[in-house]
Amino acid sequence: MAGHLAAMGFPVNLWNRTATRVEHIKLRGAIELEGVITGEGRVELATADIKEAVEGVDVIMVAIPAMGHREVAIALTDVVRDGQTIVLNPGRTGGALEVRAIFQKKGVTADVTIAEAQTFLYTSRHVEPSSVHVFDIKNEVALAALPAYKTPEVLKRLRIAYPQFIPGNNVLQTGLDNIGAIFHPGVMILNAGRIESTHGDFEYYLEGITPSVAAILEAMDKERVAVAAALGIHAHTAREWLYLTYDSPGRDLYQAVQSTPGYKGITAPAHLNHRYILEDVPMSLVPIASIGEMLGVPVPTIRSVIHLASIIHGRDFWKEGRTVDRLGIKGMSVKEIRLLAVGGEP
Amino acid sequence: MAGHLAAMGFPVNLWNRTATRVEHIKLRGAIELEGVITGEGRVELATADIKEAVEGVDVIMVAIPAMGHREVAIALTDVVRDGQTIVLNPGRTGGALEVRAIFQKKGVTADVTIAEAQTFLYTSRHVEPSSVHVFDIKNEVALAALPAYKTPEVLKRLRIAYPQFIPGNNVLQTGLDNIGAIFHPGVMILNAGRIESTHGDFEYYLEGITPSVAAILEAMDKERVAVAAALGIHAHTAREWLYLTYDSPGRDLYQAVQSTPGYKGITAPAHLNHRYILEDVPMSLVPIASIGEMLGVPVPTIRSVIHLASIIHGRDFWKEGRTVDRLGIKGMSVKEIRLLAVGGEP
Repeated sequence: MAGHLAAMGFPVNLWNRTATRVEHIKLRGAIELEGVITGEGRVELATADIKEAVEGVDVIMVAIPAMGHREVAIALTDVVRDGQTIVLNPGRTGGALEVRAIFQKKGVTADVTIAEAQTFLYTSRHVEPSSVHVFDIKNEVALAALPAYKTPEVLKRLRIAYPQFIPGNNVLQTGLDNIGAIFHPGVMILNAGRIESTHGDFEYYLEGITPSVAAILEAMDKERVAVAAALGIHAHTAREWLYLTYDSPGRDLYQAVQSTPGYKGITAPAHLNHRYILEDVPMSLVPIASIGEMLGVPVPTIRSVIHLASIIHGRDFWKEGRTVDRLGIKGMSVKEIRLLAVGGEP
Repeated sequence: MAGHLAAMGFPVNLWNRTATRVEHIKLRGAIELEGVITGEGRVELATADIKEAVEGVDVIMVAIPAMGHREVAIALTDVVRDGQTIVLNPGRTGGALEVRAIFQKKGVTADVTIAEAQTFLYTSRHVEPSSVHVFDIKNEVALAALPAYKTPEVLKRLRIAYPQFIPGNNVLQTGLDNIGAIFHPGVMILNAGRIESTHGDFEYYLEGITPSVAAILEAMDKERVAVAAALGIHAHTAREWLYLTYDSPGRDLYQAVQSTPGYKGITAPAHLNHRYILEDVPMSLVPIASIGEMLGVPVPTIRSVIHLASIIHGRDFWKEGRTVDRLGIKGMSVKEIRLLAVGGEP
């Protein structure tokens, strides 16, 4: 993202909390791009000092796994200034709400707008410390500001660089239309033995999502859609999403997955120590389940997957995850949550 | 079992609820044995009429999957007579308690003794409708009567034919020392994708029980042992059981499984429609979890596996299973359950 923005001619400061991660780019002064974008992006600055990085910038693009949002938000509390926009790429479930809750707790007074994208714009991988291979850029990604009435003004600012961003209704919608929550942890758990025993030597979607695995994903998905409905939000089912995104038809989720040619050749992760669990359980499933339980929506299947993932990793993902408490909406009514999402105050 | 008992010279009546299942034996008059036992057992009677089958017999050996215990118990209510002994081979968890609860509900007044074996004596498979291959006969199988004070008298009767039966403390012990509850459903669920996608083409124990799968089995096992402890029963852990049964050492369950040479070559079931789920979830995991929850012992891992199995099969195994209600111990204190197990009355 930094390389591409710089290559497009925008002034970019690149920050990473770990100095060694930016060292090469600092020395070289640029990020090399290959794949669907070629060229190089000369960054203005590459630094591990967040104060230096955000000073005087309009937009702060946060492009890290969601587990890091909290740490970045805390690091930003003292350095953000009036008029800046923070965009989580993506927020997973509740990213913007979590950042808002931290800012409020820390007493941040700067007039900052927080927004979250529904997914990451790029499919890309590091090649070397200062070069990247971009496989694909999505045509459309929904984005919502918190409060939602600021979405148009954030989009106006961002679309100079990224016409791909389209308005998402609000951060509840971008957070609950989280398909990774369905396609990642459940598949990992129900193929745990095979992933560990073969080091992921099978087709993740086409062999990993069998009829029974799909039945469990559909049960998780129903719970997710029911949690959204309890907030008055219409979330698409995973089956509908496959049709809308890839034109994949199917009477059930199994058929829809099997009729997605783009999934061919995508093998499974080599181990369970992977963001499909480490990120998607605490940052996607936990907030969905926690909101559901607060609103009286049963989420036994999602609960089961969170629990088994916790056992596998010897950690309590519920405790580490984005519960309603951490999202700053504990004890709120549906009305208060909706008003918060749209207006910024419950 | 019928063939072997008949071959040993005991008079045997064979019953099956389905007439076609006994037809060939009826015509032939005998069961042919091969494997570790060879020869043939001439049965007195082969019938689908349970009244005819149990008339005048001393011992009623029930050798069916535990899901059928209820139906058999109901069929027996009108035909059992004073002095008969009913033995469940095996009871899984709570078999004898369930039969007792049914007899009580149906007002059976005959003085019948119910007992359960901890596991089935034989490893065997049907070859043809009237012949069987016996792979192995176990050296020792624990057996307990309900009430437990009758165990010695039941053993005295049974050991004429089966010196392998040794005393189990009581039916709580035989039911909670149920290792299949740990080695069956969890492994199936955590390998669901692989079983369906390869039709079970992998080593069930050695490749199916990876470190993460073993971690979940150990969590289920801890819950099982804790439920037993809440009843004052010492159950062996699955790891200890592997050492006691196969001399397999290991610092954890994963190592102990991997150091069991007897597991080599045992492939996985070809599908999930298998007694490792269909029997072991409702008849082993449900009673363990239900007793646990009644006594305030947390069983979240077992609960999760029951739930995911229910989703896979589109059934509510909790509802179909042996809950405390069905075991006739709902609302009982630990003291009442222990007195029931030993004395036959709470």
